[in-house]
Amino acid sequence: MYPDSLKNLIESFKFLPGIGEKTAERLAFSVLDLEEEQVSLFSNSLIDVKQKIHPCPICNTFTDDEKCFICNDFSRDNDVLCVVEDTKNVFLFEKLGMFHGKYHVLEGLISPLDGINPEDIGLDKLIDRVKNEKFKEIIFAFRPSIEGETTALYIKRVLDGLGVKITRLASGVPMGADMEYVDSLTLERALNDRKEIE
Amino acid sequence: MYPDSLKNLIESFKFLPGIGEKTAERLAFSVLDLEEEQVSLFSNSLIDVKQKIHPCPICNTFTDDEKCFICNDFSRDNDVLCVVEDTKNVFLFEKLGMFHGKYHVLEGLISPLDGINPEDIGLDKLIDRVKNEKFKEIIFAFRPSIEGETTALYIKRVLDGLGVKITRLASGVPMGADMEYVDSLTLERALNDRKEIE
Repeated sequence: MYPDSLKNLIESFKFLPGIGEKTAERLAFSVLDLEEEQVSLFSNSLIDVKQKIHPCPICNTFTDDEKCFICNDFSRDNDVLCVVEDTKNVFLFEKLGMFHGKYHVLEGLISPLDGINPEDIGLDKLIDRVKNEKFKEIIFAFRPSIEGETTALYIKRVLDGLGVKITRLASGVPMGADMEYVDSLTLERALNDRKEIE
Repeated sequence: MYPDSLKNLIESFKFLPGIGEKTAERLAFSVLDLEEEQVSLFSNSLIDVKQKIHPCPICNTFTDDEKCFICNDFSRDNDVLCVVEDTKNVFLFEKLGMFHGKYHVLEGLISPLDGINPEDIGLDKLIDRVKNEKFKEIIFAFRPSIEGETTALYIKRVLDGLGVKITRLASGVPMGADMEYVDSLTLERALNDRKEIE
């Protein structure tokens, strides 16, 4: 029914997460309304991203350069390392603009139930780095979850004795949240982590 | 901050309707997880769609062929013409599979408030066609709206005297609708168009 090229484009949009038949059709039709230069930028950047983007050899942050923009930046604070579970979180923190240290991106979190064990998330690279680069503090910025806890505890145990301070993000009730909608695990953590008002 | 190729891909996704910064970022990152063949199909079909798709010279339905799949299909009923406001609606009806006549796609609906006048929506082509192809019935399948009404009435007046039966889609309360959420215009139309139960 659809012309072949349109059918292929609809199928292509459906490769993307959260995009079903209807949305794919709507997006594919909308491509017809774009300027020729927009379509060619779109088409080229798809190929470019797939061909050029790779993990930074030092910290795993996605880059199309030899090293990522953080590892290339000599003004960063070399004392603090923020460990994240996904390269997206590096960009999240950088948008915030509050953290000036370095990052390390793991290849996921330990999750025995999903068959993801310590040796599957690239810990060797992190541990070598901590040993060589002599950070003073390591911050775990994992999502608050069983997997996040497990991974943090595991790494902490491995790094114990290296004399490096190990911290995690505070977790608790998010700003602006309605108390009655806060889940019990979050509330428990918020209570345990309570801070004195000064 | 983002590598150039990723930044370009994020910008490209933002060209699409309803896709903002966050979604564009999520989609661009997800491209990294696709297979190489998927990305190359995606990339090529973008260019293909833009270069090959054009309106059918007879009925304006999008096609990448000389004529569209409807005008190329000699088994269609040549007595009935369904006039729609957008090529997407042709595919909508075809998916339904209940209509076996021909289609004509207008270039929009008359909307004096938006500066869209009868001469802007390609009526000449429709009128020539009606005169030459001797349809017995013309169905207006516009969205129920002031613009749809105006366009239907205008075309009806122009075609008057050609001896062709002119109809429009029934409009009224949609199946499964909750009566209290039906707007008053729809209810008014449903009342006026009431049908005798046989």
